[in-house]
Amino acid sequence: MVMAKARAIDGPDKSFRAAEIKRRDLDLHDVLIEIKFAGICHSDIHTAHGEWGPVNYPLVPGHEIAGIVTDVGAEVTKYKVGDRVGVGCMVDSCGECENCRKGEEQYCLKGNVPTYAGVDKYGEPTQGGYSTHIVVTEDFAVRIPDNIGLDVAAPLLCAGITTYSPLNHWNAGPGKKVAVVGLGGLGHMAVQIAHAMGAEVTVLSQTLKKKDDGLQMGADHYYATSDPETFEKLQDAFDLIINTVSAKLDISAYLSLLTLDGTLVNVGAPAEPLPVNVFSLIGHRRSFAGSMIGGIRETQEMLDFCAKHNIAPKIEVISADQIDEAYKRVLASDVKYRFVIDTSTM
Amino acid sequence: MVMAKARAIDGPDKSFRAAEIKRRDLDLHDVLIEIKFAGICHSDIHTAHGEWGPVNYPLVPGHEIAGIVTDVGAEVTKYKVGDRVGVGCMVDSCGECENCRKGEEQYCLKGNVPTYAGVDKYGEPTQGGYSTHIVVTEDFAVRIPDNIGLDVAAPLLCAGITTYSPLNHWNAGPGKKVAVVGLGGLGHMAVQIAHAMGAEVTVLSQTLKKKDDGLQMGADHYYATSDPETFEKLQDAFDLIINTVSAKLDISAYLSLLTLDGTLVNVGAPAEPLPVNVFSLIGHRRSFAGSMIGGIRETQEMLDFCAKHNIAPKIEVISADQIDEAYKRVLASDVKYRFVIDTSTM
Repeated sequence: MVMAKARAIDGPDKSFRAAEIKRRDLDLHDVLIEIKFAGICHSDIHTAHGEWGPVNYPLVPGHEIAGIVTDVGAEVTKYKVGDRVGVGCMVDSCGECENCRKGEEQYCLKGNVPTYAGVDKYGEPTQGGYSTHIVVTEDFAVRIPDNIGLDVAAPLLCAGITTYSPLNHWNAGPGKKVAVVGLGGLGHMAVQIAHAMGAEVTVLSQTLKKKDDGLQMGADHYYATSDPETFEKLQDAFDLIINTVSAKLDISAYLSLLTLDGTLVNVGAPAEPLPVNVFSLIGHRRSFAGSMIGGIRETQEMLDFCAKHNIAPKIEVISADQIDEAYKRVLASDVKYRFVIDTSTM
Repeated sequence: MVMAKARAIDGPDKSFRAAEIKRRDLDLHDVLIEIKFAGICHSDIHTAHGEWGPVNYPLVPGHEIAGIVTDVGAEVTKYKVGDRVGVGCMVDSCGECENCRKGEEQYCLKGNVPTYAGVDKYGEPTQGGYSTHIVVTEDFAVRIPDNIGLDVAAPLLCAGITTYSPLNHWNAGPGKKVAVVGLGGLGHMAVQIAHAMGAEVTVLSQTLKKKDDGLQMGADHYYATSDPETFEKLQDAFDLIINTVSAKLDISAYLSLLTLDGTLVNVGAPAEPLPVNVFSLIGHRRSFAGSMIGGIRETQEMLDFCAKHNIAPKIEVISADQIDEAYKRVLASDVKYRFVIDTSTM
């Protein structure tokens, strides 16, 4: 058993505090990872604040994890001590259902085991990456290519795969017009990835404040959604829209921007249902879809893709003492574009 | 110019009355069709009653038209006098846009010309099939195979293609589990077509009242949606759901019945938006889509498919004087499964 230093929260209205948590002894296929960096994802905040349902506190969030393997179980074959690895939003799944067998463990029919706020196969609560160490089965770790720094690798494990997977699944590429709604942690990854895939990329953001950033990341066009003319001008314009905004948008207005057989994919979800004008779907055989992270094999593919195309998130590295402040800044959209905790400061 | 006998309605609260309407002189590519039978579609009722927006009265509805070619324009090549033909929901489109060039005229970017309550390229209001004659350009007529009676052919032109097209587009076939929501005019076609395509077909109907009919039409399973257990039992069960019900259903509950990458397609639309719980989409990368009739080429394909598989709607033939009564019975769901007007009674 390893005692890890961590940052935990004790309730929806509490601040983070220093904590020690137990990491289990290595099972045959487990690896022990010394975490170097952990990204802060908006869903950490939703979960920590109890907004997505009841949570067992104390809670250690964090599912954008990058580190080094420091020990391996007796039958581990995939990794050795010293390997650079990442862990994302899940740490296990049944491995046997139809979806797991397809390599879509995120959609495990028995439910995947989330990296934190879940219960593992030993019946223990899972605790996330705001800590110095984690133990996971080797099948749920991915290899971080050498030319990706561990600090910028961390956000790829959630923000990267969450946007890569739908772009890949719905065939973003040459000749395809892709819009990205929102230029935040997820959106700034979607723009870079869609551009590298060869698509023509448009950012739809509330204002033009981040326009220079967006164009530099690879966007071909940039429009403000606060300008009603945007919606008139862009009717029937896109094959694929990746909506990274979890707030309650007028989704029917965005659906009307799709061309024949186009798809709008939500990668986040507002707590309340979204009203959909069905005529906006029927009019051009459009689809409104959802996508959740990606499978382990696809996560590895995404990392290799980012390494090949020199894609990395733009990050602001913080110390463990700055987590509360970082949460406030994320909620105020005051982050360019992802906070990453240096876990040596735990 | 031909004067056709017709049945027209003068306002949302009026009854149908006998009328005479002008059908234009034949242009080079026009055909004159003597209508033999015209189906009554639920959208006739919505339009006649002004529920889908303002209408120019008097209105002659009807877009499920089967008849015989009795005259042809000078340059018509596709049909000759005596041919058995059908006309569906549209009588023209721009022919030049991206969607028209793909053979998806129903999604014409300039808007197709609907068979009634539209305006044709001559600037004249279009009037539909509750009449003895109609003139259309040969490209918007389809050939009715010899082994399909004209009475049962009529409903294929809307109810048939509206269900065939999404089943075809989303690949209903062997190994696919397809659910049909609602066993009415559209639903009873969807069941027969999906079964003939080789899919495993389930009917989801409010009650079990029409169960025997459904099984006879080719359904493998039949469930009552008024029974809450139905929704528990069928979680993650279907690859494709065709929703033929235009009323405001709890669409998120139906979405939860889809398997990974499954699609629920609405072929009708309620006037109000449908609230969609986005988590039900994200959880299994599901899609909520819409589909509207089908292109002309696909409509011909559907007729040939129905001829080959001996598929026909179940109809009740009525006289022109019974239209008002038929509307009431459709609204009361008291029809098995489509009313067809014998236009010789005009």
